[in-house]
Parts: sequence; C-alpha cells; structure tokens
Amino acid sequence: MSHTLSTSTASGPVRFGPQARAALRPTSAPTVTAGFWADRRLTNARVSIPQGPELLESAGNLHNLRLVAGQEGGSFEGHYPFVDSDVYKWLEAASWQLAQAGAESGADEGTAELAAEVERIITLVAEAQEDDGYLNTWFQTGKGEGRYSDLRWGHELYCAGHLIQAAVAHRRATGGEQLLTVARRFADHIDTVFGPEGSGRPIDSFDAHPEVETALVELYRETGEQRYLDLAGYFVDRHGHGLHDGEAYCQDRVPLREAETVEGHAVRQLYLLAAAADLAAETGEEALAEASERLWHAMATTKTHLTGGVGAHHDKEDFGDPYELPNERAYCETCAAIASIQFSWRLALLTGRAQYSDLIERTLFNGFLAGVSLDGETWLYVNPLQVRDGYVDAGGDQSSRRTRWFRCACCPPNVMRLLASLEHYVSSTDGQGLQLHQYASGRFNGDVDGTPAVVSVNTNYPRDGRICVTVEESPEQPWALSLRIPEWCGQYTLRHGDTGAPVTEAVLQEGWLRVERTWATGDEVVLELDLAPRLVVADPRVDAVRGCAAIERGPLVYCLEQADHPGGGLDDVSIDPAVPLTLKERPDLLGGVVTVLAGGRRRTPPPTASGWWPYRTRTSEPAPEHTPDGGTVIELTAIPYYAWANRSSGAMRVWLPTD
Amino acid sequence: MSHTLSTSTASGPVRFGPQARAALRPTSAPTVTAGFWADRRLTNARVSIPQGPELLESAGNLHNLRLVAGQEGGSFEGHYPFVDSDVYKWLEAASWQLAQAGAESGADEGTAELAAEVERIITLVAEAQEDDGYLNTWFQTGKGEGRYSDLRWGHELYCAGHLIQAAVAHRRATGGEQLLTVARRFADHIDTVFGPEGSGRPIDSFDAHPEVETALVELYRETGEQRYLDLAGYFVDRHGHGLHDGEAYCQDRVPLREAETVEGHAVRQLYLLAAAADLAAETGEEALAEASERLWHAMATTKTHLTGGVGAHHDKEDFGDPYELPNERAYCETCAAIASIQFSWRLALLTGRAQYSDLIERTLFNGFLAGVSLDGETWLYVNPLQVRDGYVDAGGDQSSRRTRWFRCACCPPNVMRLLASLEHYVSSTDGQGLQLHQYASGRFNGDVDGTPAVVSVNTNYPRDGRICVTVEESPEQPWALSLRIPEWCGQYTLRHGDTGAPVTEAVLQEGWLRVERTWATGDEVVLELDLAPRLVVADPRVDAVRGCAAIERGPLVYCLEQADHPGGGLDDVSIDPAVPLTLKERPDLLGGVVTVLAGGRRRTPPPTASGWWPYRTRTSEPAPEHTPDGGTVIELTAIPYYAWANRSSGAMRVWLPTD
Repeated sequence: MSHTLSTSTASGPVRFGPQARAALRPTSAPTVTAGFWADRRLTNARVSIPQGPELLESAGNLHNLRLVAGQEGGSFEGHYPFVDSDVYKWLEAASWQLAQAGAESGADEGTAELAAEVERIITLVAEAQEDDGYLNTWFQTGKGEGRYSDLRWGHELYCAGHLIQAAVAHRRATGGEQLLTVARRFADHIDTVFGPEGSGRPIDSFDAHPEVETALVELYRETGEQRYLDLAGYFVDRHGHGLHDGEAYCQDRVPLREAETVEGHAVRQLYLLAAAADLAAETGEEALAEASERLWHAMATTKTHLTGGVGAHHDKEDFGDPYELPNERAYCETCAAIASIQFSWRLALLTGRAQYSDLIERTLFNGFLAGVSLDGETWLYVNPLQVRDGYVDAGGDQSSRRTRWFRCACCPPNVMRLLASLEHYVSSTDGQGLQLHQYASGRFNGDVDGTPAVVSVNTNYPRDGRICVTVEESPEQPWALSLRIPEWCGQYTLRHGDTGAPVTEAVLQEGWLRVERTWATGDEVVLELDLAPRLVVADPRVDAVRGCAAIERGPLVYCLEQADHPGGGLDDVSIDPAVPLTLKERPDLLGGVVTVLAGGRRRTPPPTASGWWPYRTRTSEPAPEHTPDGGTVIELTAIPYYAWANRSSGAMRVWLPTD
Repeated sequence: MSHTLSTSTASGPVRFGPQARAALRPTSAPTVTAGFWADRRLTNARVSIPQGPELLESAGNLHNLRLVAGQEGGSFEGHYPFVDSDVYKWLEAASWQLAQAGAESGADEGTAELAAEVERIITLVAEAQEDDGYLNTWFQTGKGEGRYSDLRWGHELYCAGHLIQAAVAHRRATGGEQLLTVARRFADHIDTVFGPEGSGRPIDSFDAHPEVETALVELYRETGEQRYLDLAGYFVDRHGHGLHDGEAYCQDRVPLREAETVEGHAVRQLYLLAAAADLAAETGEEALAEASERLWHAMATTKTHLTGGVGAHHDKEDFGDPYELPNERAYCETCAAIASIQFSWRLALLTGRAQYSDLIERTLFNGFLAGVSLDGETWLYVNPLQVRDGYVDAGGDQSSRRTRWFRCACCPPNVMRLLASLEHYVSSTDGQGLQLHQYASGRFNGDVDGTPAVVSVNTNYPRDGRICVTVEESPEQPWALSLRIPEWCGQYTLRHGDTGAPVTEAVLQEGWLRVERTWATGDEVVLELDLAPRLVVADPRVDAVRGCAAIERGPLVYCLEQADHPGGGLDDVSIDPAVPLTLKERPDLLGGVVTVLAGGRRRTPPPTASGWWPYRTRTSEPAPEHTPDGGTVIELTAIPYYAWANRSSGAMRVWLPTD
C-alpha cells in the first residue's frame, strides 16, 4: 500500500523525509477550532502550560540548568537523572502552543508572555550546554559519575531525545533556530561518541530508555542530515543483544525484529516502537514495518485495557502477560498512553489502516485524557480502572488521587505537548484526497496531485454523533474523502447535507468510508454515528473482568464513582443488563457531561461460612448475593472515565458485575 | 478466656514467661514421627539444611563474617544490608534440627556433621562481633555509613532479631550458651543505644523492618531479663508516629493499636504483629490483644488468598486493598506465609480460638509448602495462583520458576527453620488437657494440673481423613482432649477405636471438638474427617475470581498444571461443576499424590469483533465460547498446589472459570 510521497509540509510531529515510503502523510496546517478537544486545549493553553515554568522552578529543574550555567550556586535538585527532560517536554508543548497563536480559539491569549518564557528557557538551556555539545545537569553537577558511564539508568540520551524533539517542535512552530542549534550540537556530540559497530567509536551501546531514536529521525527530517537517521537505526538495532543484561525492562531481551509481543517497561517499549515505525517509513525496510505491526497487534489484542491504557504492572512499569489486564492495579501510565498514540499514529501513516486510529481515538478520550484534571491543574500518573472501597492512599506518584506535580514529573508536560499538537493527529492525505481519522471541528487540508483539497468539520462529537464535513476548496478532478468509521460503531449513515439523501458513492473498506467523486466548494456531507450507550464485554481470557460488563457511549468508556452512589460502596454493586441504558444530560456535572443511567443492584455483603474466611464450598443453590434478600435495586449513574477523580475521593469502577 | 499458666517448658518457638496470660501454651517435647510432614521434614533435614552452608558460602554471607573477623581479605559480597540474617536463619533451622536428633525418623542422620557445622559458624559469628557487642557486616565493612544511621533501610535491628532467634533456638535445642552470649551482648548494646522516650538514650527510633521485637520477647523468655521485654514493647510502640515518614511500607502510617487493617510490606506487618501478640501475652495488655485479633481478622477475611498466601502487590511487597486478591500477580511471598503462621500461632495460644490454627493449616499445606520444591533443592520467592500461557520468565527472585537460591535469600532458610520446628505448632495444653491443632503422626504431651497427659497420633492425613488418637499416659482425674475440626470440613465422625461407637461426650464448640472424660492408657478415639473433593467459591467482592471455582480436598488447594493438559494452554480451560469430582491415586506423580479429576472444557479462542480488539458489544445471544462450537470437552487433572512447578515449566491455575 505504501508509495513515495512528496516531502511533507506538515508543521506538527512526524514530517516525512523525501525518501519516505508511507501510505499517508500528515496534512499541513490543520486546525481544531471548537468543541470537545478545543475546550480541553484551551485549558491546556490557559492553565497547564502557563503554570509549567513555575512548577519546573519549584521542582528545581531550572535551578539545575542555572547551576550548570554558573548562574547560581547550590547543588542538584530533584530525585532522578532525567529531570532535564521535563524542561524539554514543556518547551515542546509551549512551542506547539505558540504555533497555534491566532489560528485557534483562545490560542493567542498570553502568546507574547509564553513566547518570552520560551525564549528565556531556551537561552538558559543553551547556556548550560558544554562547549563540546554535551548537556545533562545530573552528570554535569557530578550527581552521576562520568558521562555515558551508566547507560542503563543515566538517561542522558533519553534527555537528549526530548531536547531534540523540543528543538524540532520549536523550529516547525516558530522557525526559530536557537534551540535547534543546541540540539544539533548535542546530537553531533552523540554521533562522535556512539556509532556503528566496528567504526571505532568509543561506545557501542544504547540508552536503556528509548526516546533519542525517534527524536533523531525527526532531526533528520528537519535537517536532512542522513547521519541522524543512521544513528537512530544503529540505536534501534543494538537492542536485544545483552548490552543491558538482556533485561526486558531495558528493551534488551529480544532484538526488535524478532520479538513476538510487547514486553518490559511500557513507555520504553512504545517509544522504541515509534522509532521503528519511523525508520520503516524513512528506510522502507519491510522487516521493521512487519515487526512494528506485529507488536502493535500483540499489544492491542492482548495487553490493552478498555480505556486504551497499557502497562499492567506497577512493579517496573511493565507490560504484563497476554490477557493480564487487572483493574485496580492497572498501571496504565499516562505517558504510556501518549507513547501508544505516537506509535499508532506512525503506523496509521505508514500503512493507511484505520485500526490504528481506532486505538488512538479510544486512548485519547479515555486512558490519556484521564491523566489531567478538568481544570488542568492536577494529574494522574497511573490510570486504574477501579478504586476499591477500602483504598488506602499511600501518597506518592502512583496514588489514585490527583497530584499537583510528581516527584517523577514525566507525565504532566507529556500531556501538555500532546494536547498542544493534537490537531496533527486528526487528518492525513495520500496525495489523492483527504482522510479524517478523528472528528473535531476545524479545518483540514488534503492534497490531490499537489492541489489543495480543503474541508471544514463541524461537530459536537462525542456529545452527539453528527459530523458535518463541508468542502472549502477542491481541485477539479475527482478525489476521495475518507471518513473513519470507528470500531465501536454499530450503525452510521452518510447523507448529503443539502438533500439529506444517502451518499451513494460511499464505500466502506476496512474501517474507511471512502467517497470518491468530483467535489465542489460548498458540498456538504453529514456522517451520523450511532451514539446509543452500550454494554461491552471482554474476551474470556481477560480473567479480571469475567462476568462483568462496561458501559460505553461512542468513543467514551464510562465508570461509576462513589460520589454518585451514596448509601454504600461500589465493591458490592452490580449492573442488571436487562434494564435499558438511558442518557441524561448533566450540564452541571464535571464541566458538562452526558451521564448514562443503568439498572443495578447493591449486594448485601454476605456472611461468610465461618465468619472469618471469604471462601466457601460451592453448592447448587444460588449464592447468597443472588437471593431476593441478597441485595437492593438501585439506579447507577455512570460518568465518562476521563472525568473521574475530579470530585471528592472515593471508589470508582469501570467493569461492573452482571450477576 | 486467658489465665496465667505456669512457666512453659516448651522447647520450641514461643516459650511463655512466668507472668504470661494466655489461654494455651505449647506442649513440651512434641514429636512428628511419620506421614506427610515427617516426609517433608526428612527432605529438609537431609537436603535443604545440609546444603545451607555451601550456599551461604557461595553467596558470600560467610565470607563477610570472615572479612569482619579479620580472617580474610576482600570486600563485602551480596546485594543487601541484611545478608547476615540468612546465616542466622540457617543457624536457627539447624538448631531446631539438632533438637530432633534421635527423636524423629531420620533426624539423626548426619547429626554430628550438622552439629560441627553449627559450631563452626557460631564461632565465626562470635569472632565477627565487635567488642561492644555490635555485629552487622554491611556496616562493619563500610558498605553502610555509620551504625544506625539508616534505620529505614539498614536492617541492623532486623538482623539482630534473627541472631537472637537463632541463639534462643540453639539454647532451647542444645542447651549451648555460645550463641546466646553473642546475642545478649548485641541486645545489651542495642538497649544502651535505643530506649524509652525521655530516658536520654541516643536514638529514639525503630528499625523499619520489624523482627527484633518478637526476638527480644523470646530473649526475655529465655533469660528472664525484663529489659528485653521492655525494649520490645518500646519498639512496637514507636511505630506509627512518623519516624519513617509515616510510610505504610515501614509500618509507620498508624500506631498499631489504632490500625484497622493490615497494610504495607506483608512480612514487616506480620513480624510486627507476632511481636504484638507476644507482648499481649507477656504483659496482659488488652488493647494490644484486641488490635492483634482485629488485624488478623482484617487479614483473614479480606486480604488472604485461598492458599493462605498474603501480599497482593509485587511493588513494595505490600498487602493490597480489601478483596484485592489477584491470581497471576499474587505476591504471596514465602516469608509472608511463614510470618502469617507465626502470628496466627501466637494468637491461637493467646486466645485458644481454633480459627487461628485453621488458617495455619491452610497456609502450611499450600501457600507455605509451595515455597520449596519436592526435592528440597529449589525455591519460590513468590507464590502466584496462576501462570498464564504467555508467561515470559524475566528471571530474578520473583520468577514463577523455581530457583536454586535468591539474590535476596530470605525465604529458603525461613522455610528450613519452620519445617525444622514444625512439631511445635501441632499441639498445646491449657493445663486441663491437650489440644491437637494439626494432625500428624507423633506423640504429644499435655498437662493436667501438672501431671502429663500424653497421646500418640496415627494418621495418613491429608492423604486420608482417618486420625487415631491413643492415650499413652493419663492422670486419674478427667481431662479434655480437644480436636480441631477444620473450617473446610463439612462432615466428620468421632468413634471409639475399640467398639466403633460414637464418642458421646464429644462437644463441638467454635471449631474445637472437646472430649472431657476420664481417660485410661490405651484408650483410642478415631476422628474421621470427610475428604471428599469439593469446589469452593469466593466472596463476590473478590473480583479476581468472579465466575470461578477452585478444587480443594481436605486442607489441600488443588491446581491445574500445563504438564497434565497437553493439546492447548490453560487460559482457555473451564470446569463443568455438574460433573462430579473423582479421586485418582497417582503414586507415580510428584512424589505420590492423590489427583482430582474434573469435567472441563477447552474454549475455542473466539474471534474478536474486529479482529484486533478483545472487547465487543454485549448481546443477548450466548457468547461465542458458550456455543456448542465454542469449545471441546476435556478431562481436567488437578494436583495439590504445593506440588506445582516441580515439572517442566508451563501454565498453572487454581481458580477455574465455571462458564
């Protein structure tokens, strides 16, 4: 399916190089102007991003840079060798935000102040850089002993990767060169130290936390320097040969091209796979493309929670075994959701297949978005699917209660950078038309043999399922508008906006509803996706949710929260699937949500046989909780999962027993 | 129920002091001479314990002592500050083993060699001790900086506790004083450094890993020195006041008397609670007794796996929330099972209630015993209730594959010491008779107003349910023989051995079948416990096992292993509860086991709706796996859980879907 496209003019993440082979490429200058995501992006722009410098100041990240730059005394602050990356991720977020100035609703408010903050911090980063290009405050302040002496834990190349990503974003967003110069100097230094086996360079190894790989591909794309691409390929290839004791945690157990499943630290695995997909596009290597798709499938079919969240283990932040998808201990790190989206987007472009954007949609609306509070001020590092009645909050980064900032603050600026660049994940072009992967109000530019094909989208999705697409500019020849029909969608219609007649040219192929015709400016088609709430169940191998169902509506996973269910906890609640689900608009609740009401039951906690042991001999009689005296009928109120943990603390659950 | 007993003459763990208030006390000189546990103890005596010194040598533990003693050069070996404790636990195990010399079948084989090894290592420990009594090779070799400078992680008092326990065991077992002298010197040193608030002693804190507390109570019992008891009480009292940042992991979140549930690191919690129960007995403090019982109940009813294993989290080795009892990620550290048994036994003695020994039995036969291989040579650190088809063995201590020794080798010598002293957990006396808590062939001495009441037990339990109790010595006045009727037992009979007539005096009270009568030498009663295999189910709040049942027979939990189920994995297997369970003797299998055969089904893995997503909309039609084409009928072969992971690696599961 892949063919060579002309060099992308995309201004967001992922800009293919001139030799890239991919089915699709990002569109230029997409905008998201109104609706669900625009609202969340406004909070990101007005609250989250502006608060970044103050939080980086109080956590010591900026102090460390000033310390290294000789601008102040003291000692290194912070607990981890990778704290510089928080600064870089914030710079990347702020850069994407600056790119929106004037383009999107509210995006220009505070732009001048933000631009000044960005300049100030970029200048500081430049001043902290060594003459030879090296830059890492942990090692520069002597907290770490000897550059590159601890590639297993030192995170120097990881931090370099985020520096490069920030620099590329800043260049694409503003045209500014200063941070790119810093990044190139560091990348050039890295290139002299690490290098292809046998080239005689000093160190033959890789950073146990991938990130520099995908960043180097982007640096190649931005600069055209082939050696950055080569270095990225070299690092990817070195994984899996025992350089880090063969540990899955370090992505070193199996060479990537031979791997059969995703494993080890979820974020590391997915950043590495994003690089693999990038390299597959840029080099055309089939084996790497196949491995990327194979591993994505292993993840999607056996290791992804309903919310799109990934990573089943708190211990080591690892993927679990296939179908090991716990609820209360779902780790589902916010960063892992972001990494999954980045990986899926690269595969969506590489292959043109709709399923990758299906998973992106699910992850965006659920496992990702739950990571930030509705007010943009507090965060979740882990995103469980259940909080028990007896939950004890031990505090710390992995708390199920939102936190202002983390000791390991990787997630908040990661959320900021994705939200600030979200418009780039909405549409693509294959040179013969336009694909809409996600539905948000805005304007999206396709390409038809070099001529723009431009549409505007108007929708209140996912509050309702009506999506109007209007042609704003069209070449004269026929071209294809492709609309993704989400995997969760049982029924849809596509009609002409003027007549209401079905669009007869529409053909559904593997998730894409493709309409190839001659279009004229002002043509409008209306896609209507059925947003009736539904119950979903899991593959029976997902032991953790046996006998349970979850509520969904459109792309949104729903959950119960304690706050809506007074009079008892949630560990004793079940749902009655025979009672139809109904919708209730709640403009007053959680920034305005559509709740789903369901029939349920609250069990009377059964006495155990001996009073102290929660297990009993099975009999043919109904279990106590299934008898008329065993519970009371109650109404359940489900809210969108992304909005949980924004009220008083308490229990929560996504999967509900159907007993 | 508690009253003051005369000073115990018990020769095992837990010997009450003269002021102790407890319902029961251990019996003197119990023996276990044949049957299930005698076989396992023989392996412990002939294989596990003798191999200890060689393993301690190769792991560097003995080297560290020689290094400190100035007998050889080099540097500290091992990864943790608590490696000395492995030596002490082995010394404790070997001491209990020496006590059995000649008393039990096979116990005298190799006794002289073992005694010599013990002497050699005790001498080495003594030589490593500082003049002021301090002893810890991590700090003595400079790996740790400054004595007691890191009570959160340094484990100095933890190691001291195990030294004391070893010394007490060695004294009780052999009468030897040398190790006790070392232990007292260290205890005296600790007493000068730590001390009651306001006494002006240098350090007001506690070791974040409890162990020294219960050890100091035993040292008080062995020596009569009140200040050891006081120091134990002081340490217990200091928990929960924020000295270790209020961390649950360090047992510092809540003062013990105020706690409502067990939490934090499971072994730490349970060693602390063992000390609390010890102190409650020795001081008669009701608040401590109440807290101990309350916390035991919270553990048993909401945080204990079917196997008796405890600790739901790999991360931090913590207890989980109530009813959070995962299968594949059950941590259930072998040491936590041992700690649970130690805690329960102290409560059994303190209160006289049978439920504590119910839990001991379940834990002994399942969660504890699975920790050591059938051949006594390899070990499990964690004891999950499920291993998935796609399990990837990442190696390390927490592998689900047995290991020869661990980097953190706490469990193996802990198993050795419990097996070597197991006879002391079988019987007790209340001064008016004899209680049999566990069933094993042997001889057990009760006490009736100071006169011995002695019985012998003959049984093949748990292979069969027939337990013959013969009176070997009896005072003339009436006394009560009390037999625990296990909580799992639905039916039992008690008959006279000669006539087969029911024992009419038998009264069942809260788990104790009590027969008070005048007994004569040669009187025999036969308890028959119904060992029909059964299916058990869990409280519906245990989400992890919804829709599942487990097989049990007597005190044994059963499981399926891959080795007995060729032709597919175990993730797709379910059990048909309508098919009766049957028994099959398999003398050829796993050292001779009784297998349970069950009717089952192997699901055809269902295609997911879209081919890549394991969740689908619920419909009123049967799920694909419930249709006739959705699976094939198979016979299931269940083996006792304790015997799992003794063949080729593969999947395992305890809980079986009943769908």
